[in-house]
Amino acid sequence: MQQLEYLKEQMKRKSMIDDAVRTLLFDQSTVCPKGAMEDKNETIAYLSELSFSVLHDSKVTEAILYLYDRKDELDEWDRVLVEQQYRRYLIEKNITTEEAYELSLNETNAFVEWSKAKEASDYSIFKEPLLAVIKGCQKKAQKRELTKEDAAILKDDYDRLMDIYDRGMTQADLDPLFDECRERIIALTNKIRQSKKQIRTDFLSRHVSIEKQREITEYLMKLQGFDFNRGIFSTSEHGYTERLSANDVRITTHFYEDCFMSSIYTVLHETGHAIFDQRQPSKNNDYFIFEGKTLGMHESVSRFYENILGRSRGYVHLMYPAIKEIIPDVLNDVSEEEFYLAANIVTPSLIRTEADEVTYGLHVILRYELEKEIIAGRLSVDDLPAAWNKKYEEYLGVSPSNDREGVLQDVHWTSDFGYFPTYLMGNLYNAMYFNTMKQDLDIDAILASGDIGDINKWMCDHVFEKADRLSPKEWIKDITGRNVCADDFLTYLENKYTEIYEL
Amino acid sequence: MQQLEYLKEQMKRKSMIDDAVRTLLFDQSTVCPKGAMEDKNETIAYLSELSFSVLHDSKVTEAILYLYDRKDELDEWDRVLVEQQYRRYLIEKNITTEEAYELSLNETNAFVEWSKAKEASDYSIFKEPLLAVIKGCQKKAQKRELTKEDAAILKDDYDRLMDIYDRGMTQADLDPLFDECRERIIALTNKIRQSKKQIRTDFLSRHVSIEKQREITEYLMKLQGFDFNRGIFSTSEHGYTERLSANDVRITTHFYEDCFMSSIYTVLHETGHAIFDQRQPSKNNDYFIFEGKTLGMHESVSRFYENILGRSRGYVHLMYPAIKEIIPDVLNDVSEEEFYLAANIVTPSLIRTEADEVTYGLHVILRYELEKEIIAGRLSVDDLPAAWNKKYEEYLGVSPSNDREGVLQDVHWTSDFGYFPTYLMGNLYNAMYFNTMKQDLDIDAILASGDIGDINKWMCDHVFEKADRLSPKEWIKDITGRNVCADDFLTYLENKYTEIYEL
Repeated sequence: MQQLEYLKEQMKRKSMIDDAVRTLLFDQSTVCPKGAMEDKNETIAYLSELSFSVLHDSKVTEAILYLYDRKDELDEWDRVLVEQQYRRYLIEKNITTEEAYELSLNETNAFVEWSKAKEASDYSIFKEPLLAVIKGCQKKAQKRELTKEDAAILKDDYDRLMDIYDRGMTQADLDPLFDECRERIIALTNKIRQSKKQIRTDFLSRHVSIEKQREITEYLMKLQGFDFNRGIFSTSEHGYTERLSANDVRITTHFYEDCFMSSIYTVLHETGHAIFDQRQPSKNNDYFIFEGKTLGMHESVSRFYENILGRSRGYVHLMYPAIKEIIPDVLNDVSEEEFYLAANIVTPSLIRTEADEVTYGLHVILRYELEKEIIAGRLSVDDLPAAWNKKYEEYLGVSPSNDREGVLQDVHWTSDFGYFPTYLMGNLYNAMYFNTMKQDLDIDAILASGDIGDINKWMCDHVFEKADRLSPKEWIKDITGRNVCADDFLTYLENKYTEIYEL
Repeated sequence: MQQLEYLKEQMKRKSMIDDAVRTLLFDQSTVCPKGAMEDKNETIAYLSELSFSVLHDSKVTEAILYLYDRKDELDEWDRVLVEQQYRRYLIEKNITTEEAYELSLNETNAFVEWSKAKEASDYSIFKEPLLAVIKGCQKKAQKRELTKEDAAILKDDYDRLMDIYDRGMTQADLDPLFDECRERIIALTNKIRQSKKQIRTDFLSRHVSIEKQREITEYLMKLQGFDFNRGIFSTSEHGYTERLSANDVRITTHFYEDCFMSSIYTVLHETGHAIFDQRQPSKNNDYFIFEGKTLGMHESVSRFYENILGRSRGYVHLMYPAIKEIIPDVLNDVSEEEFYLAANIVTPSLIRTEADEVTYGLHVILRYELEKEIIAGRLSVDDLPAAWNKKYEEYLGVSPSNDREGVLQDVHWTSDFGYFPTYLMGNLYNAMYFNTMKQDLDIDAILASGDIGDINKWMCDHVFEKADRLSPKEWIKDITGRNVCADDFLTYLENKYTEIYEL
């Protein structure tokens, strides 16, 4: 009991320091003057170290081990807290402070060199730092202490990395799912490519002022149920969502004056993440349980609101008139159907973040395939760009003309391997629970009513409620009664786009 | 040497934590969602405690005492660091942790109750918390450990409080200065009251959008020499300037759409503070010397830019055309002379923060007189409102009709006594150094050139350079060769307003 109190006290201390760190990072990405960036980095590094040291104190470790041994005597919430901390402890246990410092230095260095390399569109600048990150990831994987249960399913380094981000999901699970996705998505994309369907795109590049896009954003966030009393919206170089603390969830986006549709769907996506964070059971916060949601779960929610809901006819019908009222000049000659079609246009392209709903999965699958080879040591950093380009040609029929739009496009490899697959897993999850939701709710009627509250409530009760306490496999089974599969997602895509492209 | 290194290491730690605290406070005052305020307060309190504990560690105290004993062996900058820390140590030395906690609790409570009281315009709500603050201030004064030199000049509790904010300035110094100010300002105000001069004010309440005021603000800040690479501008409920760290000085203001002139001069004032912080010698930062500038010095700089420079004909001539270009509709029938006169209109009023350059001093003097009586125990909290109202009637010829526009208007008494006099001392200082500046520079020619760089350079070389190393008395003597006096300020006022009001 005393050990539990002690652990919670330290968790509280850590959560306050983390709040400060996240506030400083938010400040840096939104308003901080350039000249102060370096000093601010120092402050952030110091506080991050302080946060790290809270849980890496021997007394805390002692408490975690003591409590883990007695976890069956704890109530459910305390048990989850202890299990999560025990899991974290095992992942980090064999990494010395010096090694942790070196890993973090590698990542910082990789980020700096990647930025330069991308700016210059020159992969050679990034090659060596990337190699250091890869070796670091292999080390992290190999040094992980595994429970007997973990050891039974995590077969190699890449499994051990993936498990950090979407725990319990292994290549044995993903390989057949992703193979099915690759095959059926490529087939669907090829059909679409041959379709004669004409979709208007001329209005998408019309000028929309930042002021107007801000108005649209506020409307969309309200419609979606964002709680402005417990969060804010701001702008930054790259859009993101961050939970600073229990009652402080922040969204940022970047407005491009010649690309208003992109900001609409970025906002739906980030607000999806935010709703998940804002509407988690308050007990999670009381028990310091907020590391349980995996990235795959989080991505399932953001992409549910962005795509399944946000790119549906019903949602477009709901938001189109309001958007038109804000920018009448831009949409006066655009019908609701034309807006809907433009929001769902499929164009195989080079850049993942700009990909449509259909081809997006291919961008993820090819990264997954490359990551497996890289971490297994079968693909060298020298051969990576060629392998990258080859897969783009093969899966998407497009070839990068330079490194910037090719292998250098994403920031993730400056720190993480094993993270990319979660982007596609999110789609598999949300298509499955959308099918369950449709059994409980009349989605069309709800959207027609203008208030999506019932959908959000269903998401709270089924998707959000236990997300921090269950593994992805347990969680999707709990929501849908079924094991994870790819068919729901692929059938959803095939039906929707067969209709749109008149295939 | 080892002790010096240790002290500096700890100063560095503290400065990083303070940077975080100030960033969190800035976040709270600008963007933080309401629902997160309480959590953020907890985080700020925790980090403030951490910052407090850095310098209140026995090893740090040991280092300070060791170094202070050997201060003559240190180079100048190290010596100032040690002296400043020794001074702080003496002020706090006899306050126990429990007492410090109680004092801070008193202040928090007083702030909360004052806010309620002001909202309700009911002094009775604030009376008891105010009494606790007064007792706390008396305790702080009495518990201060004094050096022999301090003891020789700080005669009573109020002297000891004032010295915290404008060190070395005592009632023996201020009484004759403020008596002279009171007499000559009241005389000048009475003459102005009888003047037949008509000054146009109709255009002052014309609507100016926040967007336009933001544009004016950016222009003014650039004109004044604010370094946007090392600082930002934002909006908050109340305007203020804060140095977050060496390269991060932030200004905020509040825009009122029917009161554009007020935001112009708030910006000049806050930018004055900011320039002082941005242009201090970089060695100050290296040696952690930034507690030396007294509030009186700081206020002298902000009011120099706001009033002496900003309300001069030359400065109005410089900025008027640019402002008119931004808001042509508002100023199309307003001449430059009318703008100048409106910026200098004198109206005895109830609210200090809205007071003109002439009567402002009277607001300060009457607070100074009341504070002396209160801290000496000769004026009770029961009798304070009546005493307040009587002085307003006597000095300014106006009577508050309620507590909100009377004794409850300022936030200062929720924490500090001895701070108010610095507002008037700033005027005495800057009028003195303006007279010295005029011997070196042709102000009219500089303003006519459109670039005030030479004025800023003079300020750096004479006013900013040693502000962190000298006491106010040494500092004003160093700049002007003279001891502090009131005549420069009063003569400046008399000349300027005799001309404006054709007295």
